[in-house]
Amino acid sequence: MTSRFRHVALIGKYQASGRRASSGAPDDDIMAEIGAFLESQGCEVSVERFTADELHSSRYTALTVEEIGERCDLGLVVGGDGTMLGIGRQLAPYGVPLIGINRGRLGFITDIPLDNYQATLVPMLAGEYEEDHRSLLHAQVMRESACVFDALAMNDVVVNRGATSGMVELRVSVGNHFVANQRADGLIIASPTGSTAYSLSAGGPLMHPSIPGWVLVPIAPHTLSNRPILLPDADEITIELVSGRDASANFDMQSLASVEIGDRVVVRRSDYRVRFLHPRGWSYFDTLRKKLHWNEGGS
Amino acid sequence: MTSRFRHVALIGKYQASGRRASSGAPDDDIMAEIGAFLESQGCEVSVERFTADELHSSRYTALTVEEIGERCDLGLVVGGDGTMLGIGRQLAPYGVPLIGINRGRLGFITDIPLDNYQATLVPMLAGEYEEDHRSLLHAQVMRESACVFDALAMNDVVVNRGATSGMVELRVSVGNHFVANQRADGLIIASPTGSTAYSLSAGGPLMHPSIPGWVLVPIAPHTLSNRPILLPDADEITIELVSGRDASANFDMQSLASVEIGDRVVVRRSDYRVRFLHPRGWSYFDTLRKKLHWNEGGS
Amino acid sequence: MTSRFRHVALIGKYQASGRRASSGAPDDDIMAEIGAFLESQGCEVSVERFTADELHSSRYTALTVEEIGERCDLGLVVGGDGTMLGIGRQLAPYGVPLIGINRGRLGFITDIPLDNYQATLVPMLAGEYEEDHRSLLHAQVMRESACVFDALAMNDVVVNRGATSGMVELRVSVGNHFVANQRADGLIIASPTGSTAYSLSAGGPLMHPSIPGWVLVPIAPHTLSNRPILLPDADEITIELVSGRDASANFDMQSLASVEIGDRVVVRRSDYRVRFLHPRGWSYFDTLRKKLHWNEGGS
Amino acid sequence: MTSRFRHVALIGKYQASGRRASSGAPDDDIMAEIGAFLESQGCEVSVERFTADELHSSRYTALTVEEIGERCDLGLVVGGDGTMLGIGRQLAPYGVPLIGINRGRLGFITDIPLDNYQATLVPMLAGEYEEDHRSLLHAQVMRESACVFDALAMNDVVVNRGATSGMVELRVSVGNHFVANQRADGLIIASPTGSTAYSLSAGGPLMHPSIPGWVLVPIAPHTLSNRPILLPDADEITIELVSGRDASANFDMQSLASVEIGDRVVVRRSDYRVRFLHPRGWSYFDTLRKKLHWNEGGS
Repeated sequence: MTSRFRHVALIGKYQASGRRASSGAPDDDIMAEIGAFLESQGCEVSVERFTADELHSSRYTALTVEEIGERCDLGLVVGGDGTMLGIGRQLAPYGVPLIGINRGRLGFITDIPLDNYQATLVPMLAGEYEEDHRSLLHAQVMRESACVFDALAMNDVVVNRGATSGMVELRVSVGNHFVANQRADGLIIASPTGSTAYSLSAGGPLMHPSIPGWVLVPIAPHTLSNRPILLPDADEITIELVSGRDASANFDMQSLASVEIGDRVVVRRSDYRVRFLHPRGWSYFDTLRKKLHWNEGGS
Repeated sequence: MTSRFRHVALIGKYQASGRRASSGAPDDDIMAEIGAFLESQGCEVSVERFTADELHSSRYTALTVEEIGERCDLGLVVGGDGTMLGIGRQLAPYGVPLIGINRGRLGFITDIPLDNYQATLVPMLAGEYEEDHRSLLHAQVMRESACVFDALAMNDVVVNRGATSGMVELRVSVGNHFVANQRADGLIIASPTGSTAYSLSAGGPLMHPSIPGWVLVPIAPHTLSNRPILLPDADEITIELVSGRDASANFDMQSLASVEIGDRVVVRRSDYRVRFLHPRGWSYFDTLRKKLHWNEGGS
Repeated sequence: MTSRFRHVALIGKYQASGRRASSGAPDDDIMAEIGAFLESQGCEVSVERFTADELHSSRYTALTVEEIGERCDLGLVVGGDGTMLGIGRQLAPYGVPLIGINRGRLGFITDIPLDNYQATLVPMLAGEYEEDHRSLLHAQVMRESACVFDALAMNDVVVNRGATSGMVELRVSVGNHFVANQRADGLIIASPTGSTAYSLSAGGPLMHPSIPGWVLVPIAPHTLSNRPILLPDADEITIELVSGRDASANFDMQSLASVEIGDRVVVRRSDYRVRFLHPRGWSYFDTLRKKLHWNEGGS
Repeated sequence: MTSRFRHVALIGKYQASGRRASSGAPDDDIMAEIGAFLESQGCEVSVERFTADELHSSRYTALTVEEIGERCDLGLVVGGDGTMLGIGRQLAPYGVPLIGINRGRLGFITDIPLDNYQATLVPMLAGEYEEDHRSLLHAQVMRESACVFDALAMNDVVVNRGATSGMVELRVSVGNHFVANQRADGLIIASPTGSTAYSLSAGGPLMHPSIPGWVLVPIAPHTLSNRPILLPDADEITIELVSGRDASANFDMQSLASVEIGDRVVVRRSDYRVRFLHPRGWSYFDTLRKKLHWNEGGS
């Protein structure tokens, strides 16, 4: 049987500190075994450059993310959700689909267990899979008319207070419409993908990945009626820092910009989106049930 | 100046018990005055039949809702949100747009104060308005293969336990996918319009009216991770009663069906939607700020 | 070795519908085995009357709850939390301590697994135990100056709306002080014991059993700032039904009174309290961690 | 008429950044007027030293807080809740009672409006008042066996993550009992007084001042069942930093200590308490209703 994906990139190391991620660098043996398996399915195999650096030896070509984007037909990620977030953002402009194999506890988006991965991958490589598109947040930090920071995020953009200061005051607007001045520890703008991460901890709702919106979730808001609010992702959201010292903006909790008074964090939907492939029969709700321990007869 | 809306129906009495509604029957004088104003703008005026019954005298033709739907170009509602919900559901199949004048505290969807309503209506009748479309829930209670109840709802469909029994257990699915078995006091399926009503009280998020989704909000769920979840309104949602005595389904808290074990409450997006007209410059967020007391310097 | 508890009552059947209870009637063999074990420890054994009715045969004397209260030194409950709530309330006036053996998933207050119960009970019968006192709510429904219902509750007193009506409006006062008029689905007054039951589902905090207070938790309150509030148990709490049809008051979700407009549900601390005995080294927090799935590496 | 409080200290300037405080330095005229009024009631008047520094001129003796504690019979605070928190902590060891006059929006603990303060104060100075005692948190940061920071707090002790790092992991114990390992943005230990401040924003319950307990409120906890928990104030609470960079401990959001991995923040009830005096007829619930906008017919 021949894989529909001719050239596959193995990606194992984009460790990041996502709140609900549990990651770990793959070791040589596992990567070599997966590589051999892919070759047995008729794939050409390359290894992402930083992943290659972690391996003691590898007979596969090392490629940068850009080279993967241009040359590969599939990214096979071996790691946790944090790894997937990191590489997903970078590969989004190239439209390369991603499959996630998880070595430990399954994640929300890395949902194939390492045990017996071959039985799962064989039909997927043959074209039997569910495709699942995730929107990306494109965020810019604007200082007067200049853009001082530009980033993509899969989960969330978070504007928060400095650790040693009180609340921030944030002026929120959507398109040309003023929404509210919010005083809080911070504000999370989460995608559906991010709705199971920090947003959930802060009181936000779960969102099915096909919802074309973001949720704005205030963190410990001063005003109790400042509740999470769902906004269409077609509109641009602007968060202006009105007051607060040492504030910062975080993108997937993986990159960071400091935010000064008067700065605006502007968020719009990226033109790109991330393509995840899942085994046939995959359901988003199965993942939710498992990860959130629903129906376990517990409290 | 001539109104673009040739034939206007005055609607004043669809009192209902919506949780956040504050309604009241209009009196003769006000209705007569508004009627005269509409005539001065070049409109033909009729009065909804039950509204006419409440008035001691009226020189306008009384029309049923069906007749309004077929003959009128605009419904002018004088009342609260509950009145608007009731008439909105009924007029939705006809596409007649609605304007809401509120005699008391402004509502979420009846946003023109009675004081000085003329200055607001003159440009609106001339075509200067913002149009705001609201989706409708179409719900059916299925017993085996028969439909035993059929209703539209603008705010929400609520399945809940009997007052004197314990929790209900509900099996939730979306399309062909099983979501979860939930044990709770009940479950709210709310539209964006309903997100500021019962759903908000039970912990649901606010939703901008343009979000094409529903939020499922469990009421006092046994499992703490059973959080509100946003689902696309393109899919059919099925709630099956697994256990629980004296359960019922409520539609906008205005109509009611009893639900037996094994019954399924099936919710889909109605083909109809409600058209609200607002004054030029209207913003949904202005209404939220006012109704939720944001930015009042308070707690 | 001789038990410090000379006369022990075996109690197995007070099935009730507590929300977080998982109960089940014990069978003959288990009760006979436990009875024999108790005799081997030097105890005289009796069986609670309704429990005896469930058993096909038993060589032990059947006693009413009153007789247990007057004659026995210990109640050994074999069942779930619901069973314990039911018998705990009834034995409270007599001061008889209780031990709970759970046949299924451990409860919050029935914490000794049936497997290997003997090893746990031997030292407890010898006097090696932790004693844990729980306060009881004493509730009365007052209609004008008459008391029309009187009940004890270990978990909670709940005043709630009828299933087919809208919100209730409740006037809450503490001692002579007016607290608030609340519009909601209902109001829970929970003891520390009840803080892990319905109250938790409705958004209330956990409370250590030694806190001398109740928590008032509104169910789906109209006003978002109507948050749970901790009140000292030394003061009398009065809940007056201001409006709402078919309202009722529930006591531990096991007994029920209808509540009419103008009725007052008056709650004070009972003079009695329930005495639970736990194995040496028992910690309330161990139970919380286990029941709430803390520290399982999950979401 | 003669005041029962012979020597009164005027205190106007302990500006601090409490989350729900709205403070402002008093001006000369107001302080002079209040001073003259106090003299007219037979009081000797002094001014707190830093307050005196803010005034352009004052004919009253300036005293340090220690001197006030030793010599004065009453502190009259003119400012907001933040001012009261600051001075309350410092005067607690001396037992000097405090009255709060608020120049702006009334606070939770500064509840006498400046307008017409004389009519309110005359009976209070004559002994007609309600006394309201508030417990204080005594917190120490322990590094191995050394105490590296020691502080009192009236509202709360907060252990939180650095602004640019992920979650902290905190090991919580009470007395000798392990409670849980919590991963979150941070953890608030709030007194009843602090239950209306940061704790409320983070999801904590309201607590009547007479409750002898603290509430532990996790901030954006990873585990959804990590709910606020009420603990008796008789036990010592220990929070150990297990992991997390740049963590800190805040005391009333007014002072700050950095916390390293392995450090323990130990909280116990202070031997001191703060004595607030209120006008006769004062009720804690009246303040709650006003500050939380209950019963305003709103959402």
